[in-house]
Amino acid sequence: MLSENSPAPSSVRTKRYELLTLGDELLLGLTANGHLTYIGAQLGRRGVLLQRNITITDEAEAIVSQFRESWAKSDVLITTGGLGPTCDDRTREAIAEVLGQKLVFEPEIVKAIEARFARLGRKMTDNNLKQAYRFERGEVLPNAHGTAPGLWVEQDGKVLIMLPGPPNELQPMFAEQVVPRLAERGLLLDREAYVQIRSAGVGESALEVKLQPIFDRYGEALSIAFCAHQGQVDVRVSSPSGALSFTQLDEIAAECAKLLGEDFMCYGSDSMAKVAGDLLRAEELTLAVAETATGGMLASAFTDICGASKFFAGGCVCYSNESKMQLLDVPECLLKQHGAVSAENAVAMAVGAAERLGADYGLAITGFAGPCGGTNENPVGTIYIALHSPQGVWSKKLHYPGPRATVNRRAVNAALDWLRRELVRASRGAVVMGGQTGGQNG
Amino acid sequence: MLSENSPAPSSVRTKRYELLTLGDELLLGLTANGHLTYIGAQLGRRGVLLQRNITITDEAEAIVSQFRESWAKSDVLITTGGLGPTCDDRTREAIAEVLGQKLVFEPEIVKAIEARFARLGRKMTDNNLKQAYRFERGEVLPNAHGTAPGLWVEQDGKVLIMLPGPPNELQPMFAEQVVPRLAERGLLLDREAYVQIRSAGVGESALEVKLQPIFDRYGEALSIAFCAHQGQVDVRVSSPSGALSFTQLDEIAAECAKLLGEDFMCYGSDSMAKVAGDLLRAEELTLAVAETATGGMLASAFTDICGASKFFAGGCVCYSNESKMQLLDVPECLLKQHGAVSAENAVAMAVGAAERLGADYGLAITGFAGPCGGTNENPVGTIYIALHSPQGVWSKKLHYPGPRATVNRRAVNAALDWLRRELVRASRGAVVMGGQTGGQNG
Repeated sequence: MLSENSPAPSSVRTKRYELLTLGDELLLGLTANGHLTYIGAQLGRRGVLLQRNITITDEAEAIVSQFRESWAKSDVLITTGGLGPTCDDRTREAIAEVLGQKLVFEPEIVKAIEARFARLGRKMTDNNLKQAYRFERGEVLPNAHGTAPGLWVEQDGKVLIMLPGPPNELQPMFAEQVVPRLAERGLLLDREAYVQIRSAGVGESALEVKLQPIFDRYGEALSIAFCAHQGQVDVRVSSPSGALSFTQLDEIAAECAKLLGEDFMCYGSDSMAKVAGDLLRAEELTLAVAETATGGMLASAFTDICGASKFFAGGCVCYSNESKMQLLDVPECLLKQHGAVSAENAVAMAVGAAERLGADYGLAITGFAGPCGGTNENPVGTIYIALHSPQGVWSKKLHYPGPRATVNRRAVNAALDWLRRELVRASRGAVVMGGQTGGQNG
Repeated sequence: MLSENSPAPSSVRTKRYELLTLGDELLLGLTANGHLTYIGAQLGRRGVLLQRNITITDEAEAIVSQFRESWAKSDVLITTGGLGPTCDDRTREAIAEVLGQKLVFEPEIVKAIEARFARLGRKMTDNNLKQAYRFERGEVLPNAHGTAPGLWVEQDGKVLIMLPGPPNELQPMFAEQVVPRLAERGLLLDREAYVQIRSAGVGESALEVKLQPIFDRYGEALSIAFCAHQGQVDVRVSSPSGALSFTQLDEIAAECAKLLGEDFMCYGSDSMAKVAGDLLRAEELTLAVAETATGGMLASAFTDICGASKFFAGGCVCYSNESKMQLLDVPECLLKQHGAVSAENAVAMAVGAAERLGADYGLAITGFAGPCGGTNENPVGTIYIALHSPQGVWSKKLHYPGPRATVNRRAVNAALDWLRRELVRASRGAVVMGGQTGGQNG
């Protein structure tokens, strides 16, 4: 539901946001431009489409000329980088000149920097004082995770926000200080602009065809956006005009989820492993994994989740046949007869992992990810996955084109999605059986 | 050595390159801007610093206005995206208008697209014909991996290069067609502009102090750039004026490597795991790994290398105590007495992995990566690594601040670097011993 102060989505949409990212390291391809990904996504969630991102060198001349142009065009201009103590660039000075403002020394910033150094048991060096200047008609955004504070200026009906370059400093500052301030001023929505449904195993166009009858009922009041990535498709339902309330959007999303059945993964943006893990935890079940070519990617998908030890027993990366025999009790004769890239071995690995680690479910991947390896029967790109569950054990043969990293990623996603679907079916089965014995309906 | 046609580095440096990346998905943070990282790095290797990257929406109006400004400022302008069959934007048309060129239908492109569809056993749909237009005074860059060809225009003493959006189409087109064409025209160097030395375990400023005496001998003829990332620092030596030949740069790099001793990792940009793996392969030695919180990251570092099965036996991700006992023979009493996050357990895991998998080396990581877990004695961020080698077994306690992913990444890097150094020492030991018995000097 919209709070009373929430701006109308349509008024937010007309604000022009630009992002100016500074740094030669971005232009030399040494660092990925994570600020664009992060800030773009955060603004998108609050109903704003960033209009332009410009990355320029650290040269003062380039900064002045670009800042002047971007400032003239924007309602909100965000800059990242160039605020640190060692930079020999003149970002603050260059921008102050264009704004016609003076920089003033702020003793409070020095105190905060000194306190930070003291906590780390070090003494502040003088070059840090460079970070203690703010615009004379501007505010300071304290930095809880580093020395350079952010800077906030409102002038000519526009907002300028200067953020420090390190992502672990920028991201909390943006989420905790910048987003609420922008929302207060009606420059972005005070909650997410859309409800996101994440689906798996259905192509973008098939998904659109399937959901269209629901969307058709709402006409232009409803806006739909699809985004496909790695075997998953996200659907975002929103109402830019504000004609539909958030309660209605939630209801539409629930209807889509119901129609999608087990192709529905989750609301929001949880990973496949997180969704499967939550299903395991809910039933107090455990999982063990075994893998070859994917070499730890399958295990990582689970261990990236905090608290994974509640359901994840462990995994084996079995490159050699020796390791498959030693760690997973795969019989030597099986490997000799069928080879390591075979349905038989995948099954033996899944069962071996579950039994060795005393887990309820065992998930295994073996295959040729390339570029080396492969046989006539099982060329590069051939993957076998196997799933051991309390109900039995199965194997599937898959084939993916593309480079090694792509093959591995798709294999891991396929295995995770299979596990997820089995868990969904098992939990539904339990409900039905409960209904049959206890006379309840789900 | 410079070939006869090679442009002088200084003339390349004065050319202004801009990159225009198109797409709402970039501005919404749905996709990382990998084109900037890739193209920026490729240009940097050939002596060019990209001056500006601009990401804008797919709207025709935004494209026209940005293209006009960027074209006026650039010597070489590269665009990515907006060339596909389904885009409803007008990228080609918008740019043709600014250039004052007509678009002409090119039957050769249609033939190539039809052939591609035929190979995939599908029929070309009509919307693909949209991709068959080129500029009347321009060329076509064939696309070996997709339907939309690239476009090349030379006009007003400038070059425009339009590339398709999918990275697997763009990257080979850029490397195989664009770079050679630009080099032919003297717009970038025809070999790498620098020699890169990768070091580990020395901070950027300490490295600078250490190498300065070498650099000082060459004065302004030599240019040095440092780039620090994840415990490694890269040093690039180049000669923008062309005063030093590439043979001389190679010699300077070799001198730096010698001075750095075992802090020298490699020339170029191999990963730590690749360097360690090469050392193992050279001696026909094998490795097994065991890990807890890093959950597969350590194993992945090796399995990401093609041909890793030559030296990598396998790994265990042991989340539960049960799995440590079952997979690695860690004694239950040890886990009860010292806990899973202890030097004793790290040692038992390293030895267990090596023994179980019959490997020469065993590398183990256990710890609290956070945000949950941790004790008074071993707070979040505490990591134990252990290395089992033919010479014995050791353990180290480390502590890293920061979020889970950072702690894990640093723990993996520390373990890999330890292994690398041990292998370097072991191989040197062999040389010294050979020298002692055979009367040779290294």
